[in-house]
Amino acid sequence: MMQITGEMLIGGASVRGTHGTMFAFDPARGEPLEPPFGAGGADDVDRACRLARAAFDAFRAAPLDVRARFLETIAENILALGDALIERAHRESALPVARLEGERARTVGQLRLFAAHVRDGRWLAATIDPAQPERKPLPRADLRLQKIPVGPVAVFGASNFPLAFSVAGGDTASAFAAGCPVVVKAHPAHLGTSELVGRAIEQAVRACGLPEGTFSLVIGAGNAIGEALVAHPAIRAVGFTGSRGGGLALMNVAAKRREPIPVYAEMSSINPFFVLPGALAKRGEAIARGFVDSLTLGVGQFCTNPGLVVVLDGPDTQAFVDAAAQALAQKGAQTMLTAGIAAAYANGVAERATGAGVRALAHGAETGAKHAARAALFVTTQQAFVSNPPLEDEIFGPTSLIVTCRNVDEMIALAEHVEGQLTATLHIDADDVALARRLLPTLERKAGRILANGYPTGVEVSHAMVHGGPFPATSDARTTSVGTMAIERFLRPVCYQDLPAALLPDALQDGNPLALWRVWDGKLGNA
Amino acid sequence: MMQITGEMLIGGASVRGTHGTMFAFDPARGEPLEPPFGAGGADDVDRACRLARAAFDAFRAAPLDVRARFLETIAENILALGDALIERAHRESALPVARLEGERARTVGQLRLFAAHVRDGRWLAATIDPAQPERKPLPRADLRLQKIPVGPVAVFGASNFPLAFSVAGGDTASAFAAGCPVVVKAHPAHLGTSELVGRAIEQAVRACGLPEGTFSLVIGAGNAIGEALVAHPAIRAVGFTGSRGGGLALMNVAAKRREPIPVYAEMSSINPFFVLPGALAKRGEAIARGFVDSLTLGVGQFCTNPGLVVVLDGPDTQAFVDAAAQALAQKGAQTMLTAGIAAAYANGVAERATGAGVRALAHGAETGAKHAARAALFVTTQQAFVSNPPLEDEIFGPTSLIVTCRNVDEMIALAEHVEGQLTATLHIDADDVALARRLLPTLERKAGRILANGYPTGVEVSHAMVHGGPFPATSDARTTSVGTMAIERFLRPVCYQDLPAALLPDALQDGNPLALWRVWDGKLGNA
Repeated sequence: MMQITGEMLIGGASVRGTHGTMFAFDPARGEPLEPPFGAGGADDVDRACRLARAAFDAFRAAPLDVRARFLETIAENILALGDALIERAHRESALPVARLEGERARTVGQLRLFAAHVRDGRWLAATIDPAQPERKPLPRADLRLQKIPVGPVAVFGASNFPLAFSVAGGDTASAFAAGCPVVVKAHPAHLGTSELVGRAIEQAVRACGLPEGTFSLVIGAGNAIGEALVAHPAIRAVGFTGSRGGGLALMNVAAKRREPIPVYAEMSSINPFFVLPGALAKRGEAIARGFVDSLTLGVGQFCTNPGLVVVLDGPDTQAFVDAAAQALAQKGAQTMLTAGIAAAYANGVAERATGAGVRALAHGAETGAKHAARAALFVTTQQAFVSNPPLEDEIFGPTSLIVTCRNVDEMIALAEHVEGQLTATLHIDADDVALARRLLPTLERKAGRILANGYPTGVEVSHAMVHGGPFPATSDARTTSVGTMAIERFLRPVCYQDLPAALLPDALQDGNPLALWRVWDGKLGNA
Repeated sequence: MMQITGEMLIGGASVRGTHGTMFAFDPARGEPLEPPFGAGGADDVDRACRLARAAFDAFRAAPLDVRARFLETIAENILALGDALIERAHRESALPVARLEGERARTVGQLRLFAAHVRDGRWLAATIDPAQPERKPLPRADLRLQKIPVGPVAVFGASNFPLAFSVAGGDTASAFAAGCPVVVKAHPAHLGTSELVGRAIEQAVRACGLPEGTFSLVIGAGNAIGEALVAHPAIRAVGFTGSRGGGLALMNVAAKRREPIPVYAEMSSINPFFVLPGALAKRGEAIARGFVDSLTLGVGQFCTNPGLVVVLDGPDTQAFVDAAAQALAQKGAQTMLTAGIAAAYANGVAERATGAGVRALAHGAETGAKHAARAALFVTTQQAFVSNPPLEDEIFGPTSLIVTCRNVDEMIALAEHVEGQLTATLHIDADDVALARRLLPTLERKAGRILANGYPTGVEVSHAMVHGGPFPATSDARTTSVGTMAIERFLRPVCYQDLPAALLPDALQDGNPLALWRVWDGKLGNA
């Protein structure tokens, strides 16, 4: 069984940080967890980043099959950690064992999906415009384009997914898939989980014969270490999932670099949930119960938590509100990921209760759990909502605000009023299609994913997923952080003009030796 | 014949600016050109941007064929302007008539290429993960992804391509192709050309029945109007070609917005040109002459001008240097685009001549032309170059610096030392392949396009072109501003989950009614 030593992993070496001592914390028991971790500093970040830069050309030059096997080996090594990983993650996050097992399956599946995607090679965007030496007035050169990785990527572990959005999570998997070395800054809430997964990656680097700088894991208290990482000249892109404040701080560091770099920060979303009149009439109470289940799932600690419910005033509205309140009152308080998150939630809910025009509808049951969140449901009017900007602030946890609209125009105006979102949900019946059609263009401009008759929590890892959206949902709406399209964040195109075959990359050789889908003279094909 | 009135075009209305008077200027004759233009201000920008926002949903909802015909109609309308357009552009830019006719053909061809690309629809990235209702432990929802336009785009006309990188240039064509309304800020050096082309677009908007806010053209003196444009909340992306200072200023404005937006600024590149020893021995003098022709083409006013030549010290080096100096001395001074550009060029060359370790090799011939640039060639050593950062600054115009390296390691170190570039050129013979292979990984990291045995000026508008590269060549290396891939700058993905067919976009309907290439359950096909 793998031991947790409290060390960082810097380019294949285990390094004890000398910038103070940190402990992971068990929020359910309210006690620190052994062993002590040595916190790293800017010197450790510098070493990790220099090694990543040194590894870059060799890592990206490895055959695609080696890169794919590397991802698969990470997946195997994570599974080989067995129950010890789940147990440690459970202690550090208070998330239930079954949820963590599911999250491990998702993490492993994600690595394997990216392995298959690497082999497929469509992401190379191989494109060939053959020479036209006879063209008038000027001949055309031979032009061949492929995408190459951008360079070393900094990844920040997220608090709410100790596996799927952390050390070997989606950002790391997609960066490796693109051919980028990765330097992870572990989330301080799950240091032990991070070290275990980090060692699984480190072993895979070694087993696949990749350069040591392909992966490093650093830890540190406060913001300095993360800022040093984003500011480091070797780093060419950043993946982050966390708070709006944290994301904005990293965007700011990146914008001030001599060479600015892209920051993919997934930050803040309240995920508006529209229940249209036909659906409200036909199955309002069922939707209310489903909504409360989605809201309180995982103690509301999901980016896609439905934090804003929008309904029209009408004959069925009160029954919906009552059913939601009743369902929510039966939900027991549960321990949150960290003491700090629990405190911030309690403050946020207390403040919301004093918002102008806001009325508390229901609270979840007390259970005596430590650092726990009681669910909380509020109601207000569209007019109060649009004139009171703090009502749009995300409160991370199991709380939501129902907004009642007096008419369809108010509902559309509200959709237009809200900031960028990860998701927008429509509950509709056959009668609602005309209204949904009116809402849809606005929702497309506002959100990365639009759902009908479902619940926004639960993000499939697949080809068509978009986990992204306009600011402040993310810092860069052109992308997704979940699904195979996430690889595109870490690629850039290069054109080769009249290069002899001896110098051309395999993907662009005549005869298509990698058997790729390629665009040849404007036509897509795989011959 | 279309008259130049001196008005702005704001959402279909001709508007005379009231913030002062501007004149275009004929640099060859040194005199202002009629008519006077009324300069616009922030109020005009606000009107144009609000109209663009209002137009967005309707413009993007128009069938792809309408969008394609719109681009084709712009092309026809530009051709219909006839000689008047070329004559005015010639007066405003001092560029030769034949060059401007070629540039018009390129502009028209670019619009038509984007029209074909719009119809092709691959850029929609249509991707469908069909539902798996029986999947365990959880069913999979039906997930369908397409890319949609980001919203209104601000385009800045470039000084050096009054047609191909200006009002109806590549940024505008690719933004329209993506479905984005465009607000252009005309370059003050070619106000009349801009108005003529703007009216060609305005007529196409009307002829195609598109909303008036689809296109606006604003003008103004100084930086305030451009900054107001980038800061406007309705603007969702920026396309710019110009100086490093100008690009950085716009990036700064964009980063300070409440909602940051992508800025695609193509800025500064010295386009290193490596002549390897085998090529130097075999055809050094021919390369020297070709290099000088490329350097002085269009008075050196190209982004891809070869401003840095890298050679190894050796038996053939002096002959190469002499041949380049001799060819350059025969080039006569020519009028530059503007008086300001000519003055900045003269200053830059004078300063370069005083650089530590720099020796002037040759100057072009005086001709008495007004606001003219004399070509200038300098030489220095690798050691002087890498220890003297100002030697890497771009001087816009027909000047270049030959850097001699004592050995291969110095050459590779130089490649590693330079900033990001639009292009890197290798002149190689069969003997040079091993050295070229050593240089290639570095050049891939540094440049958007790598050429062998050619000259970097001349940028093909095609599918495989990359006119982009790492900072400071551009502000965003993930893209290109020339070629069909430029459309991706103005798109973002949206996922539709379990949407009924009545609400799904055409591109994602079962049965593939648009006959698109789509990814279905991970497999690409067009059935």
